[in-house]
Amino acid sequence: MATMKGLAMLGFDKIGWIEKEVPEVGPNDALCRPLAISPCTSDVHTVWEHAIGDRHDLILGHEASAEVVEVGSLVKDFKPGDRVIIPAITPDWEAVESQAGFSQHSYGMLNGWKFSNSKDGTFAEYFHVNQADGNLAHLPDEISAADAVMLSDMVPTGFHGANLAEVAYGETVVVIGIGPVGLMAVAGTVLRGAGRVYAVGSRKRCQEVALAYGATDLVNYKDGDIVEQVKEAQHGKPVDKVILAGGGLETFDQAVRMVRPGGIVANINYLGTGEYIQIPRVEWGLGMGHIRIVGGLMPGGRKNMEYLAQVLVNKRLDVGRLLTHRFSRFEDLEEGLLLMKDKPRDLIKPVIELTS
Amino acid sequence: MATMKGLAMLGFDKIGWIEKEVPEVGPNDALCRPLAISPCTSDVHTVWEHAIGDRHDLILGHEASAEVVEVGSLVKDFKPGDRVIIPAITPDWEAVESQAGFSQHSYGMLNGWKFSNSKDGTFAEYFHVNQADGNLAHLPDEISAADAVMLSDMVPTGFHGANLAEVAYGETVVVIGIGPVGLMAVAGTVLRGAGRVYAVGSRKRCQEVALAYGATDLVNYKDGDIVEQVKEAQHGKPVDKVILAGGGLETFDQAVRMVRPGGIVANINYLGTGEYIQIPRVEWGLGMGHIRIVGGLMPGGRKNMEYLAQVLVNKRLDVGRLLTHRFSRFEDLEEGLLLMKDKPRDLIKPVIELTS
Amino acid sequence: MATMKGLAMLGFDKIGWIEKEVPEVGPNDALCRPLAISPCTSDVHTVWEHAIGDRHDLILGHEASAEVVEVGSLVKDFKPGDRVIIPAITPDWEAVESQAGFSQHSYGMLNGWKFSNSKDGTFAEYFHVNQADGNLAHLPDEISAADAVMLSDMVPTGFHGANLAEVAYGETVVVIGIGPVGLMAVAGTVLRGAGRVYAVGSRKRCQEVALAYGATDLVNYKDGDIVEQVKEAQHGKPVDKVILAGGGLETFDQAVRMVRPGGIVANINYLGTGEYIQIPRVEWGLGMGHIRIVGGLMPGGRKNMEYLAQVLVNKRLDVGRLLTHRFSRFEDLEEGLLLMKDKPRDLIKPVIELTS
Amino acid sequence: MATMKGLAMLGFDKIGWIEKEVPEVGPNDALCRPLAISPCTSDVHTVWEHAIGDRHDLILGHEASAEVVEVGSLVKDFKPGDRVIIPAITPDWEAVESQAGFSQHSYGMLNGWKFSNSKDGTFAEYFHVNQADGNLAHLPDEISAADAVMLSDMVPTGFHGANLAEVAYGETVVVIGIGPVGLMAVAGTVLRGAGRVYAVGSRKRCQEVALAYGATDLVNYKDGDIVEQVKEAQHGKPVDKVILAGGGLETFDQAVRMVRPGGIVANINYLGTGEYIQIPRVEWGLGMGHIRIVGGLMPGGRKNMEYLAQVLVNKRLDVGRLLTHRFSRFEDLEEGLLLMKDKPRDLIKPVIELTS
Repeated sequence: MATMKGLAMLGFDKIGWIEKEVPEVGPNDALCRPLAISPCTSDVHTVWEHAIGDRHDLILGHEASAEVVEVGSLVKDFKPGDRVIIPAITPDWEAVESQAGFSQHSYGMLNGWKFSNSKDGTFAEYFHVNQADGNLAHLPDEISAADAVMLSDMVPTGFHGANLAEVAYGETVVVIGIGPVGLMAVAGTVLRGAGRVYAVGSRKRCQEVALAYGATDLVNYKDGDIVEQVKEAQHGKPVDKVILAGGGLETFDQAVRMVRPGGIVANINYLGTGEYIQIPRVEWGLGMGHIRIVGGLMPGGRKNMEYLAQVLVNKRLDVGRLLTHRFSRFEDLEEGLLLMKDKPRDLIKPVIELTS
Repeated sequence: MATMKGLAMLGFDKIGWIEKEVPEVGPNDALCRPLAISPCTSDVHTVWEHAIGDRHDLILGHEASAEVVEVGSLVKDFKPGDRVIIPAITPDWEAVESQAGFSQHSYGMLNGWKFSNSKDGTFAEYFHVNQADGNLAHLPDEISAADAVMLSDMVPTGFHGANLAEVAYGETVVVIGIGPVGLMAVAGTVLRGAGRVYAVGSRKRCQEVALAYGATDLVNYKDGDIVEQVKEAQHGKPVDKVILAGGGLETFDQAVRMVRPGGIVANINYLGTGEYIQIPRVEWGLGMGHIRIVGGLMPGGRKNMEYLAQVLVNKRLDVGRLLTHRFSRFEDLEEGLLLMKDKPRDLIKPVIELTS
Repeated sequence: MATMKGLAMLGFDKIGWIEKEVPEVGPNDALCRPLAISPCTSDVHTVWEHAIGDRHDLILGHEASAEVVEVGSLVKDFKPGDRVIIPAITPDWEAVESQAGFSQHSYGMLNGWKFSNSKDGTFAEYFHVNQADGNLAHLPDEISAADAVMLSDMVPTGFHGANLAEVAYGETVVVIGIGPVGLMAVAGTVLRGAGRVYAVGSRKRCQEVALAYGATDLVNYKDGDIVEQVKEAQHGKPVDKVILAGGGLETFDQAVRMVRPGGIVANINYLGTGEYIQIPRVEWGLGMGHIRIVGGLMPGGRKNMEYLAQVLVNKRLDVGRLLTHRFSRFEDLEEGLLLMKDKPRDLIKPVIELTS
Repeated sequence: MATMKGLAMLGFDKIGWIEKEVPEVGPNDALCRPLAISPCTSDVHTVWEHAIGDRHDLILGHEASAEVVEVGSLVKDFKPGDRVIIPAITPDWEAVESQAGFSQHSYGMLNGWKFSNSKDGTFAEYFHVNQADGNLAHLPDEISAADAVMLSDMVPTGFHGANLAEVAYGETVVVIGIGPVGLMAVAGTVLRGAGRVYAVGSRKRCQEVALAYGATDLVNYKDGDIVEQVKEAQHGKPVDKVILAGGGLETFDQAVRMVRPGGIVANINYLGTGEYIQIPRVEWGLGMGHIRIVGGLMPGGRKNMEYLAQVLVNKRLDVGRLLTHRFSRFEDLEEGLLLMKDKPRDLIKPVIELTS
């Protein structure tokens, strides 16, 4: 039986290259080999923050563009050699939850997230994709393999924030956190027609890119309470929506204090620690202020990938601005992952474009 | 200048009959005299729980059916002698918030609530209604004056809970709290096509009426943790929606622990005390579980009154079940209000139908 | 290879019993044997109105409750012996259209409709169900096999009409056509909280059942123009919504003339003939009246079946009123189908409950 | 009593300058004098196509930016000297229709349209605005008086098309008609995140501006059937949405033939002639294809103006591209109106910026 190399979580706080059997492909599935891959902060959560518990020899990674190597007997729309986009979330499409519009939670909460969680991830010579017809998307020629990796998680997660916030023409929106996901939330907010957009973050490189994506105002928590800063800039007028893409549980309290009755606080941030999110009772209108609080994992699957790819193909968004660190060899992956862990100030997102 | 009698909050913890000038009517407004009135738990909050701060000689009450006595020069659709429904919430319809669909918060959070808050209420011989064409509704002959009072607040608040929860055919819904508002949430939930409906409360009379309104299961917090009770009855399957119509801030934590990914927790309960609502991080899907948390004041105004009246006219709902204590003299109002304060076990709602 | 008996369309205008091979079951699929079946007007369209073109030896039928006989290797939630509800529409759940919320049109318009269309139907000793985990639902003990057949098509189609019309509390709704689908539209409209409900039809039996399901007014087109009749009953006030569940293309013109600005005309009627639906320009507000016109095939699949089953289990709806003609032998199916073709005045729906 | 000059419809096919009394201001209203005005194709419909019937000495115009001259006693947020945006549609905000979210149809279909319809318009030295607090919006300093006129009708109508079409990220949208409204539909579509956008029109100047606003493909009906052209460019794949902003009733048939199941055809075009809109039965899925057909007048009022102004203030949209013909004297208005009537090939929109 063939084997393959992959970068794995060996246990808490330890990563390393391992050798594993190449996954078998069921009738509905596909086997892919990566064209480009990118480490994500979630990988860091998994290894060094113990977010999903202990795992041994779990291959990491959930972001990739790829080439199809093998497909199951029932797969109709993909064949070996096809270049494809890989969504980080690959739901079970027949599940009742998917039928109800929440495929992220097919057969259980967050269960659409399989790569480097309930099975091996994309940081390998080969990886397995369940329900290929529903979870792969053809990669248009106009999109490079490296750009395509941003469609796996960064674009859909950031844009999901803007969708959850139901951003509408001319609205004033605050995006808290401007790492790569927050930056995509800024871009997605502008692409839904927002007016004024506050970007909250401290790193200069990220601030510059936030402005390039259409943020109109920068807020730095190092300059004082962000609620006060926004209120002052707004002359006391509440904002329409707040998207949470970084920070800790305290951001909910801050958000509710900024937003108007009828507004929305939309979280796309993986909340790794703490017991309770706290909603201030009075500012939440004594329970009657119609401030909606919601948070959600990005929608995965083919349809979302196809539509978001069209955003790139038609030049509505340049994801290249995110790719601050580019590598070309599979072995560079380890360095890329450690970059995400250490977050140097000029980093937004590393990508490994495999040139073979 | 003519004067009138009214039952007022004299100060914290004190009520009494006072004499005041009859309100003046602006060009858009109306003066009404009550046909029937009902005290509400909110009046109790105001006087004895100091919920809206100190007030002196503020006439209480926000529930009434009435007869129009005088209208302003610009009022088109109402004239003296018309029998009308009075919504507890009487928005400023031209406000930007109203145009955005949140008339409850016209010109500021909760500001559509004017009676016995920013102006004198309905517990008087006469009361003032702002923007009569937008805030009165003609009372159909088929509805008694006493039943009509339930359209002021109980029906619209309870039904708003079911609307916020977006109850759909066959869904499983938990309603926490089965005072009159919770009972209307039960009825509204059934009238949106719910399947199984859990009613959480301890008073026998309320339980009986909950069953009459279509609840399928009763849960009593005196029998143990309600989350555990619901989970057991559900064989571990989460419910679709939870409506909060009673209890304190702890109900949010309970609700999130019961509800499915993609579910909704809808609050219609006036949250009178406590600093923070607490949302359990893990059960909320680490911020990514798509459990929506929302709460809102009932929509006031004419349109909502007219449509809800049609629910009664067409016999979809019998509000008479709520009216456990009936009085007929204006002076009985004080006793009615004290009943709401003391909540004897057989009380749901007192009403004073003025027989003059 | 085993064979089975089935009632088939032999060609245009001809039905007959045929012998066919028992279908093979793929890894995701199931083989079922019917517990109860019911002929539908669509079967009549297929055979005698040539609605889907010429077919030879196509087994008819798309309504059934059943017992699972065999499942594919990947099926998780069903096993032989399970009693199940069969939806008339069995989508391909991984399709992009399904992911977009329109599973009825998976891989092409109306393509979720497979039984007695693109493959053999339920009028056989055995029938094949694609994607069993997504398209079967467990039949609760509380529902009889005969009642369960109404969940295949009648209930979901009628209720889909009420959903498309977004019926809300107290609204006035006209349902045109009160055959079994229209009757379920009436029931679904009432179960979404409608106020006044006009039922348009001429057959006495259907009228009686319409009233039993909550219609408040009967309109008979034999008594004159239905638009005029509704307008008169409404004293000129337009209605909120119109659901089209019968009649021909002319019903759209009628509906637009009745409905308010911002209202909805929702079609669930299979439109078998004619070239164009005509929308009256002036009454449609010169194109600017916000009268939405929409029509759609019922949503199939497991989730919808499970939730609608809860409507029955919790006694919100008695589908027994539809079942005017009951049979008990497989051979009676032919008589049942001819009843649907000839529509005697006392017929609503025949059902064959197989007693084996 | 003071008089004023205005450009009026004298009768069918005749315009001229007349002298009228300055309008009186009720308690809720305002009197304004124009800072900039623009003629609209609707004015041409009114005078030369007899669209709203015969009128004598009706002052034309519904697009303007203005200065407040006088306000009624109950107006709170505006005072003489304020610079304001004037929406073409000025609803009665207390009306039941407005409360239901359809203020355009307050007290009757299209009844929110008052200027140059049910009362004198903006082509006068002074004009009257009903419900000033609800229908005026403060003009931000960043927006010129000329640009602000585009907020009266062109921007809100075009953007309403994109809203009715519920354009989402990456969708493929066809905009039929690229006069000024169609161009704003293109811009609004791009600002809701569309991918590929087809602009259908023949005038070169308009085509250039369509591309500048983000259209990706131009389609000219002079080059053949537009349905065939779009289908060929799409390789047979249907589009997601179609917005109708020009042409006649035939555009609905074309649109339905292009759009996918679950798609939307959204009309913002004033349909001036013809008896029936025709929807092709088969392509509409035999009534079951979930292709939604809707059309609507732009939402007027303050909230919409304020939010759309923020789109300009934050430089998401440059309306200057529409203003092909600029004038500076009140008397030039007549020439501007005749330009709209004759539509020279290089015209998009004339504006008269009053320099006094």
